[in-house]
Amino acid sequence: MLPYKSLIQIDRKSPVTLYIQVCNVFIALITKGMLQPSDLLPSSRVLATLIGINRNTVKLAYEELISQGWAESLGRKGVFVISKLPALSKTKPSETSKPKSDNSGEAFRWTNKFKNATPSENLQKTTLAIDDGFPDVRLAPIDQLMREYRSLSRKFYGRNFLKYGSAKGSEHLRISIGNYLSTSRGLGVAAENMVITKGSQMGIYLAAQLLLDLSDTVAVGVSNYGFADDTFRHAGANLLRIPVDGKGMDVDYLEEALRHKKIKAVYIVPHHHFPTTVTMSMERRLKLLNLAKEYHFAIIEDDYDFDFHYENKPYLPLASIDHHQSVIYIGSISKTFAPALRIGFMTGPPAFVEAAASLRQLIDKQGDTPLEEAFAVLFNNGEMDRHFRKSLKIYKQRRNIFCQILKSDFNEVIEFKTPEGGLAVWANFDKKIDLLKMSENASRKGLYIANGSFYKNESFVTNALRMGFASLEENKMVEALGILKKVVR
Amino acid sequence: MLPYKSLIQIDRKSPVTLYIQVCNVFIALITKGMLQPSDLLPSSRVLATLIGINRNTVKLAYEELISQGWAESLGRKGVFVISKLPALSKTKPSETSKPKSDNSGEAFRWTNKFKNATPSENLQKTTLAIDDGFPDVRLAPIDQLMREYRSLSRKFYGRNFLKYGSAKGSEHLRISIGNYLSTSRGLGVAAENMVITKGSQMGIYLAAQLLLDLSDTVAVGVSNYGFADDTFRHAGANLLRIPVDGKGMDVDYLEEALRHKKIKAVYIVPHHHFPTTVTMSMERRLKLLNLAKEYHFAIIEDDYDFDFHYENKPYLPLASIDHHQSVIYIGSISKTFAPALRIGFMTGPPAFVEAAASLRQLIDKQGDTPLEEAFAVLFNNGEMDRHFRKSLKIYKQRRNIFCQILKSDFNEVIEFKTPEGGLAVWANFDKKIDLLKMSENASRKGLYIANGSFYKNESFVTNALRMGFASLEENKMVEALGILKKVVR
Repeated sequence: MLPYKSLIQIDRKSPVTLYIQVCNVFIALITKGMLQPSDLLPSSRVLATLIGINRNTVKLAYEELISQGWAESLGRKGVFVISKLPALSKTKPSETSKPKSDNSGEAFRWTNKFKNATPSENLQKTTLAIDDGFPDVRLAPIDQLMREYRSLSRKFYGRNFLKYGSAKGSEHLRISIGNYLSTSRGLGVAAENMVITKGSQMGIYLAAQLLLDLSDTVAVGVSNYGFADDTFRHAGANLLRIPVDGKGMDVDYLEEALRHKKIKAVYIVPHHHFPTTVTMSMERRLKLLNLAKEYHFAIIEDDYDFDFHYENKPYLPLASIDHHQSVIYIGSISKTFAPALRIGFMTGPPAFVEAAASLRQLIDKQGDTPLEEAFAVLFNNGEMDRHFRKSLKIYKQRRNIFCQILKSDFNEVIEFKTPEGGLAVWANFDKKIDLLKMSENASRKGLYIANGSFYKNESFVTNALRMGFASLEENKMVEALGILKKVVR
Repeated sequence: MLPYKSLIQIDRKSPVTLYIQVCNVFIALITKGMLQPSDLLPSSRVLATLIGINRNTVKLAYEELISQGWAESLGRKGVFVISKLPALSKTKPSETSKPKSDNSGEAFRWTNKFKNATPSENLQKTTLAIDDGFPDVRLAPIDQLMREYRSLSRKFYGRNFLKYGSAKGSEHLRISIGNYLSTSRGLGVAAENMVITKGSQMGIYLAAQLLLDLSDTVAVGVSNYGFADDTFRHAGANLLRIPVDGKGMDVDYLEEALRHKKIKAVYIVPHHHFPTTVTMSMERRLKLLNLAKEYHFAIIEDDYDFDFHYENKPYLPLASIDHHQSVIYIGSISKTFAPALRIGFMTGPPAFVEAAASLRQLIDKQGDTPLEEAFAVLFNNGEMDRHFRKSLKIYKQRRNIFCQILKSDFNEVIEFKTPEGGLAVWANFDKKIDLLKMSENASRKGLYIANGSFYKNESFVTNALRMGFASLEENKMVEALGILKKVVR
């Protein structure tokens, strides 16, 4: 007899009735092959004693097994696993098997239509990190957000926000963000022309899926945000790499390419280019807009970094100049607040925004309305403004200190320009430093720092890293760079 | 001179400095064509008085305009819009233009790779609705959830959940849901073999994108969940419709089709079929599993409705019998809790789950960790169990009352079977009733009810509706059906 006492674990607090729990264990034993066709099940009296439940519960379980076709009662002989059980393959549960890099040997086939980028860093368990340029989550007015969130759920009308809503997201939040875009960057956008996304990544994804068909061409920087590259590849597109210099993407090079090739979309992070933190010049912005009109391509303007500009002269987004003709404008609240609260937005030509909302329904129906409503309150009561102002001030101080230390302590190994904005320094390491080893050695000393592979691609080889300063308080910054100094020596 | 006083609205609470606000308004006027090349700007003294700001602020704004290349100073003559402004097309901002059904006339082209399903109903503003079968959001322990959510954000370690985390979702929640799946349905799944999704819709989307390439075939019911159909079409697949009867999908028909055609995946809602609420028989479940092994296709098992089964005999999911070989198992917490809080899960072969997590990174990086962590607490402290038990009891009562009223008051116009589970009745209306008109007339009397178009497709013509009973308290149910009775008379 099988060791039923240990095999059948009863959970009396479960909403599943006891007899169904017992029944389910038997089905599992049968389908795993531990009980074979025609095997005798223990008598209800024996099993009841073994696992400490009422005998009638066991009888109910057996009746259920019989009615579902897993067992048969042969009168006085007892209850048996059904003799003509359909052949089910008997393998171990998958927990014990390892994932493979391809899926040969699996029961069915699937495709990765994209090359895997380095998986995102899970920073929830690190205590000291020089990251890619992430915000300091301790600065976010999270408690105010949660207070609003909770307060909404207690109000009668707030309960309605728990029902299905619009795929475009909370109307209140779209209005609030619209107002913010208007004052901060002269971008006039009506609520119905905006879709709330889960961070800027979902904006890139929606744009890619709508704009790009199989074998279409999208122009991107020679150096570029790796997850954008992957998102375009996943949509089936080919990447055309355009050089990027100190003034952003080289639009003359792009113009030359346009003469020979149909390009469906151009992806830019004008403010500030990822990973090199360069700001695109106004001259190039205007030329790019004119090229878009001449050659009928879409500009995907990923402006997640707009809010962090320290020299007090952020250029207007291309979208503000374009008035929703050629530009799809993508922004992020996650990046200014907390990465694990996924809120962003996308605006563009009205019909495009409608199509994006339809597609978004297929992806995840809609966003979390109560969270969106809570953010709307924070925009409306000035909390977000205070947060932007406060964090901008703190990040500027941190940038200055960080760059000072880099200059004084890493002068021989790191070459960089102080970034005008954003949350990271683009640090070119001396050739003699092996970034892979540096990252490993730092990790052993308790410091997370990337190994640089995320910033490379098939046409961009570099020995550089983004070094995020924004999430580091001054003492942590000193500690982190102190460890790094020992590692690179 | 332009009416600057009304055109230039200053927001003194904005984090954007005043002079940048003024500068941005001028750029907008220039790019919209309201200010033309070589137009004279008002003197700083005049403008300062007009809009009530310091003259030096205006001067700073003009300097900024000049440095960005929008304006030029001609000594004592004043500041002018630059004469050699690149030609920018001058159209009205898009707020005033209407979205079109196609995008002819737009500056660039995009594609809807899918036919639009009826947009989801926005139920956040309705007060009385017979819906598609949605939960009663007032039953959800939302306040407990929010309390945990807020409490997490106040704890030191809770703050870490605001940083970037795993694309698979909160590990705590994966463990909690794993435990729940094990006791409720004998499905053994390790945390690393599960990805937390934004509701079951995202599970369907991820599975579709990974399994289906252009022109692949996916088998679905003749009647089927419209958003699943659209999601498969969006992935480029062709639908093969398989008949569905009182025992679920006709697997003999499917077997015949498999002899002639390569089928990559089969989508089923075994428990209970959408829209007809039928439960798939155990015999067919086992046969389908065997066919999957023989013909190497994937089964997408959408089991969002498992938790609502009133006859106390829910069949085991196919996934529980299959042990992660051929079945991708999709479930929802949103459907049992609150639709606007998007939480669901997907399990499957380990390598498939890894691929799904990689793809998920491209879509929206990850879920909202704090919300996921709060749900994990509710699973662990028994709150979710209590909720499941309580709502099951209430929904069963509501189903019984609803069906009683349908029998007594709608006997001549509606034919239906009392559903064994789920949150809706599949109501076949008499041919003489025009559902479009019925829906419109009900709407005029303050009752939302669907017009039936969502349940039809190119091969399924019906005069039936899903009538959700779960979200209606008894007095509302009487009110709603009272209105409907008047409408169909």
